[in-house]
Amino acid sequence: MEDNGRVVSDPAPERVGVWLIGARGSVATTAIVGAAALARGLVRPTGVVSATEPLASASLPDLDHLVFGGHEVADTSLLKKAELLADEGVLPLTLPATVADELAEADANIRPGATVDPTGKRPMETIERIGEDLRDFRSRHGLARVVVVNVSSTEAPADPHPAHSDLTSLREALESGHAILPESSLYAYAALDAGCSFVDFTPSTGTRLPALEELALEKNVPHAGRDGKTGETLVKSALAPMFSSRALRVRSWLGVNVLGGGDGEALSEPDRRRGKEESKGQVVEDVLGYGVESPVRIDYVRDLGEWKTAWDRISFEGFLGTRMNMHFIWEGCDSALAAPLVLDLARLTSYAHARGQKGALVPLAFFFKDPAGTREHNLDRQLAELCAWVMGLEDG
Amino acid sequence: MEDNGRVVSDPAPERVGVWLIGARGSVATTAIVGAAALARGLVRPTGVVSATEPLASASLPDLDHLVFGGHEVADTSLLKKAELLADEGVLPLTLPATVADELAEADANIRPGATVDPTGKRPMETIERIGEDLRDFRSRHGLARVVVVNVSSTEAPADPHPAHSDLTSLREALESGHAILPESSLYAYAALDAGCSFVDFTPSTGTRLPALEELALEKNVPHAGRDGKTGETLVKSALAPMFSSRALRVRSWLGVNVLGGGDGEALSEPDRRRGKEESKGQVVEDVLGYGVESPVRIDYVRDLGEWKTAWDRISFEGFLGTRMNMHFIWEGCDSALAAPLVLDLARLTSYAHARGQKGALVPLAFFFKDPAGTREHNLDRQLAELCAWVMGLEDG
Amino acid sequence: MEDNGRVVSDPAPERVGVWLIGARGSVATTAIVGAAALARGLVRPTGVVSATEPLASASLPDLDHLVFGGHEVADTSLLKKAELLADEGVLPLTLPATVADELAEADANIRPGATVDPTGKRPMETIERIGEDLRDFRSRHGLARVVVVNVSSTEAPADPHPAHSDLTSLREALESGHAILPESSLYAYAALDAGCSFVDFTPSTGTRLPALEELALEKNVPHAGRDGKTGETLVKSALAPMFSSRALRVRSWLGVNVLGGGDGEALSEPDRRRGKEESKGQVVEDVLGYGVESPVRIDYVRDLGEWKTAWDRISFEGFLGTRMNMHFIWEGCDSALAAPLVLDLARLTSYAHARGQKGALVPLAFFFKDPAGTREHNLDRQLAELCAWVMGLEDG
Amino acid sequence: MEDNGRVVSDPAPERVGVWLIGARGSVATTAIVGAAALARGLVRPTGVVSATEPLASASLPDLDHLVFGGHEVADTSLLKKAELLADEGVLPLTLPATVADELAEADANIRPGATVDPTGKRPMETIERIGEDLRDFRSRHGLARVVVVNVSSTEAPADPHPAHSDLTSLREALESGHAILPESSLYAYAALDAGCSFVDFTPSTGTRLPALEELALEKNVPHAGRDGKTGETLVKSALAPMFSSRALRVRSWLGVNVLGGGDGEALSEPDRRRGKEESKGQVVEDVLGYGVESPVRIDYVRDLGEWKTAWDRISFEGFLGTRMNMHFIWEGCDSALAAPLVLDLARLTSYAHARGQKGALVPLAFFFKDPAGTREHNLDRQLAELCAWVMGLEDG
Repeated sequence: MEDNGRVVSDPAPERVGVWLIGARGSVATTAIVGAAALARGLVRPTGVVSATEPLASASLPDLDHLVFGGHEVADTSLLKKAELLADEGVLPLTLPATVADELAEADANIRPGATVDPTGKRPMETIERIGEDLRDFRSRHGLARVVVVNVSSTEAPADPHPAHSDLTSLREALESGHAILPESSLYAYAALDAGCSFVDFTPSTGTRLPALEELALEKNVPHAGRDGKTGETLVKSALAPMFSSRALRVRSWLGVNVLGGGDGEALSEPDRRRGKEESKGQVVEDVLGYGVESPVRIDYVRDLGEWKTAWDRISFEGFLGTRMNMHFIWEGCDSALAAPLVLDLARLTSYAHARGQKGALVPLAFFFKDPAGTREHNLDRQLAELCAWVMGLEDG
Repeated sequence: MEDNGRVVSDPAPERVGVWLIGARGSVATTAIVGAAALARGLVRPTGVVSATEPLASASLPDLDHLVFGGHEVADTSLLKKAELLADEGVLPLTLPATVADELAEADANIRPGATVDPTGKRPMETIERIGEDLRDFRSRHGLARVVVVNVSSTEAPADPHPAHSDLTSLREALESGHAILPESSLYAYAALDAGCSFVDFTPSTGTRLPALEELALEKNVPHAGRDGKTGETLVKSALAPMFSSRALRVRSWLGVNVLGGGDGEALSEPDRRRGKEESKGQVVEDVLGYGVESPVRIDYVRDLGEWKTAWDRISFEGFLGTRMNMHFIWEGCDSALAAPLVLDLARLTSYAHARGQKGALVPLAFFFKDPAGTREHNLDRQLAELCAWVMGLEDG
Repeated sequence: MEDNGRVVSDPAPERVGVWLIGARGSVATTAIVGAAALARGLVRPTGVVSATEPLASASLPDLDHLVFGGHEVADTSLLKKAELLADEGVLPLTLPATVADELAEADANIRPGATVDPTGKRPMETIERIGEDLRDFRSRHGLARVVVVNVSSTEAPADPHPAHSDLTSLREALESGHAILPESSLYAYAALDAGCSFVDFTPSTGTRLPALEELALEKNVPHAGRDGKTGETLVKSALAPMFSSRALRVRSWLGVNVLGGGDGEALSEPDRRRGKEESKGQVVEDVLGYGVESPVRIDYVRDLGEWKTAWDRISFEGFLGTRMNMHFIWEGCDSALAAPLVLDLARLTSYAHARGQKGALVPLAFFFKDPAGTREHNLDRQLAELCAWVMGLEDG
Repeated sequence: MEDNGRVVSDPAPERVGVWLIGARGSVATTAIVGAAALARGLVRPTGVVSATEPLASASLPDLDHLVFGGHEVADTSLLKKAELLADEGVLPLTLPATVADELAEADANIRPGATVDPTGKRPMETIERIGEDLRDFRSRHGLARVVVVNVSSTEAPADPHPAHSDLTSLREALESGHAILPESSLYAYAALDAGCSFVDFTPSTGTRLPALEELALEKNVPHAGRDGKTGETLVKSALAPMFSSRALRVRSWLGVNVLGGGDGEALSEPDRRRGKEESKGQVVEDVLGYGVESPVRIDYVRDLGEWKTAWDRISFEGFLGTRMNMHFIWEGCDSALAAPLVLDLARLTSYAHARGQKGALVPLAFFFKDPAGTREHNLDRQLAELCAWVMGLEDG
């Protein structure tokens, strides 16, 4: 009864489902382990933006009211995967065993991800099967809402198709058996259609098609994306405004990203890498407001494992055209940066859903390399917009 | 006619004096050369914040209405100094000759800087002599206002004295011949007393004493400082908010600054270096809001000449305590970064003076490592405050 | 008199021709300007290995006995090109005008480089035309010997062909009009056939075919190559032995090379880049003696102009498997590093030619990324071998 | 019976004592743990130079014939210290427990290190007590020889004294109760006097006094030092020869070393730091053979713990004076780099002792920042000299 909070009259607070596509990957596993550790009060919420003020005071779903499930092709258990991550230094060594119960619960909610028909002939059946998994998850656990978060490997960019531009055409094409949606968009379609919100943490297509925006509005569900901003692009979005605010002219900005492990291996395929490079390429120009040579490269060094390294070299001009330069080197652990943002996004998207928001959630741009509905990449302004939006929903 | 601004009906717009302490140093020379080149339309205003919107639309004094003078101990001519800077790559090679006339004009306004009584016994006489130089400069050129900008070498930190804390005591002490003010504060006293505004571009004491704040208020003049934020600290003030906004915990932040040439040589004296290290040390903790090991080192490598290099190593924690790090290396040309800010500060301080502002100009924090009256070091917020303040004065 | 060397009794010392393929490129122009400046005693021989002991004491041809000529497609004059390089900071500003006479002399010896038959049908005619240019150069200037140095843009790797493996087959194929030699090898064939020595400063095929080694031996001429070691690979060949000598196990070594200007533009074509990446890739493994993940990347940033930047990240293990890493960043001016080596190679190859050496000059490995006839990449050992070889020829 | 080696016919091979000053410090603990793990065949000998050819084939004492003991002020057990190092990532997590028996054995041989008389009045008594500990260790374990290795914290440089220059004067001064030897030299004196060889792994004075060289010769024992070359200086000794061999002129070379943990804390005292900075400062000039601005800085960041970071910035000139630069960043674990060298030095010094070598062991320069008896800092040449020397002793 303490605090007269949001509790008293509500003996059983709402529970919210978080359905992860790629549910036994490094990011998903770290998110699930971390949510359990935080719910038990074992660790500090480092890296969790929604645990800092003013968001911490908003009525977002609590971490211990999240229920995890998802789709996954691999069948290593979450506990085993967590132990591997601990060996690599991503998780504290004894933490996986400590939260083994929570991992087992989540594991029980994971369904095989190979839902896509290999012939690609019956997309609607695939969508239907995904939707069934989601509805089953929701009803079995009595969840108030489900948010689907794509944390699977990056796809190759999808081929454009006229039917992507409106929902009626898209439905017709899918019903006629045309395999015109990439896997991420099949998941997105299924999620929205089932009344679940959708978050794209990867650079894949997901909901980034007019027809799916239409579907989100029709179903009154929000969605957010895309491509979680966790490393080199994060630094760019903090640093590019510095040059801009001081009227220093950037001449070139080279960014080299080096990945190891699973994500890197997927990105060693040129097509998938292209998707990633494109989603990262616009930040510098968008912040500066003028054209600048700013290539982004993605390389793969297996030995890096769960770690990412980036080197950026920025050439710029000061007063009277004097040329100067700066370099930065970033050595980050991808999962330790991404996982808390997955929790943030799940909480915020579900919260927006509960408050009647629908369609693309533009104020979540803070979290993404390639945000929907805006070209604002200045990190500080993105944070201000995020906080103002949440405070507005809170008051409303 | 006073309020009619720079309009047609006003045949002779106001001229504003910029009095530089250290008037033939690299920064001052670059500022004077650059102001001439900009006034003639020879170059783009790269690095000049007041030339970007929204400040560019405010009624700041035009660059071709600035008249330069100053104090200086060296007697190399401005032209000669400019040629040396061009040889070092700080200025375009042919620019000094092109603006030789403007340099000669400014040279004619430079007075010997060795105004400090070597015995230190008669501080009031020193103040009086500085004041005469300023009044003479103002009346000879019919200047509406004069802004004094300290761009001389860094002093050793001053010893505290009880008379620093109020104006009455300070006046009595000075009149009794107590040498309790460092050189920068003698200049500051003289400037304020003569009704000139004062800008501290160095980490020296300058106006940073309660008694001098009192004097500024008494004389209705504004002042700003201190220590122009041009390199490593600038990057810090852009980057530290990134860690903060993402709830990443900074464990340590080492900053190593390497200077060459004149400024570096002065700073190779441990006492002066201490002054500089102190003025740089608070940024990280102030932005993050918690204690963090963040030593700042200043080293001298003569070979660097007019260039500055910095290396920062930041160690931080992400989700579940995973440790990561980042490095940056900055290779900047001090004068090419500082000189345009000197022009910005002269224009903005004079503008504030004209609009009746007095005392410390807190909204100019954007320009300084150790800003007066605030602990806000977030570059983006500083810029927003600066713009809002100017727009407010404009409307007022 | 032939063996009397450069002694008093010899009124007209031998003159040696240096025929540059790509004679008005940045490297060639810098080499010609520098040779003139050194011959006049205007500059120190920084970067010239043959000007240091013990090589400086060997009887290599003097710099003022070198006569420059070459093939080139561009028709900008050498003086104009030198002035452009001076504007970019590659040459001292006034040096091009100072050596204008020498540049004009060399310019007069440059022949159009578009000697390759566009239909590719008559390779022997192309070879014949190149050979005529070389013989004409030699006889017109009364040169004792001519060394041909390829400093043109990197070619795409050539398709293998059975006739590459012996000289008889190659001659038959060429005479039958089969275009089976890349341009660099047509030049190499013509040079060797005309009794000129040949140096490959690029990663192109050049003499790197068994049939051309046979030709060199038949004609009693030496050749050397390939791919001048001027930057990131140079550092590798100094640093990799450190890990080896301390028994530290390298886990991965990523090298990212960023080029601007002409060379970079050529290398932005994936096929040509592949040639370069391959010639750089073996150094680490060859020095360490075990397999290691050591990808080499080449990127192009136009803004870099004549400058090259590289970033290498090395991950290694120490005692008990502890993982550590190091990074280096290299900011070099390609021509300022390559041009003195071109002079070294011209002098040393001509010297070897005069002393009856023929075929691949293995002791010149010190200068190359992908040296002929050896897998020794340890820079220190390469230097020792070079010096021992020259001292041996000297005594012989 | 093969090879008539040290096997079959020799039922009890010689055992060699390794007496560590600072026996429970990070380096000593890592060395003892590692020797045990190697003797048991649990790990690869990464970082152990004497395990690579040709040294691996020489008849150095085997690792499982080494017996460890030492002096130490701290009373944390070796096992406890090893566990702390494992928590910091210096040792594999389970290794301390695995070799607990060997750690307990070594622990039993550790004597209190506070042997120095606080009044400093009776240096000979201190020497005597140290000598007793050494003789007792040797006789108790039936050791063929004992090598004393100083791996304690860096001392402040000692004040010079005339009696340092010959043994007779030194003995007289010590017997008269003059406290003119720093602690490291008291240990060195005691070791040599007791017929033990001595290795200085720190920059402290140790045997670096003419009087102690005389004592070593008188007692027929060898000694080696000083200051193990494990990080930034190691890289310098590999990289400086590169500039030299290519005739590139180094203009300045700044080295910034950042230490954490125990060693760093000691070095945060300016006097001790000075000792370290001096022992590191000569490498660049000695390799290059000309004067060059090459300051070395040592900083302390507690957060680094057992890790060391260094940043070096090298400015150099190429052909025609073009200026270029390079940076390197080193992230090393001190103990993982130093401990295997301690084993190498113990084995090599004991081997030299057995073969009748006495006085300073110049061929061990490979291991030291400030080697005795030579100014050769080129790493490659140092290794060649080391191997030639051992092969010579082997044949002799």
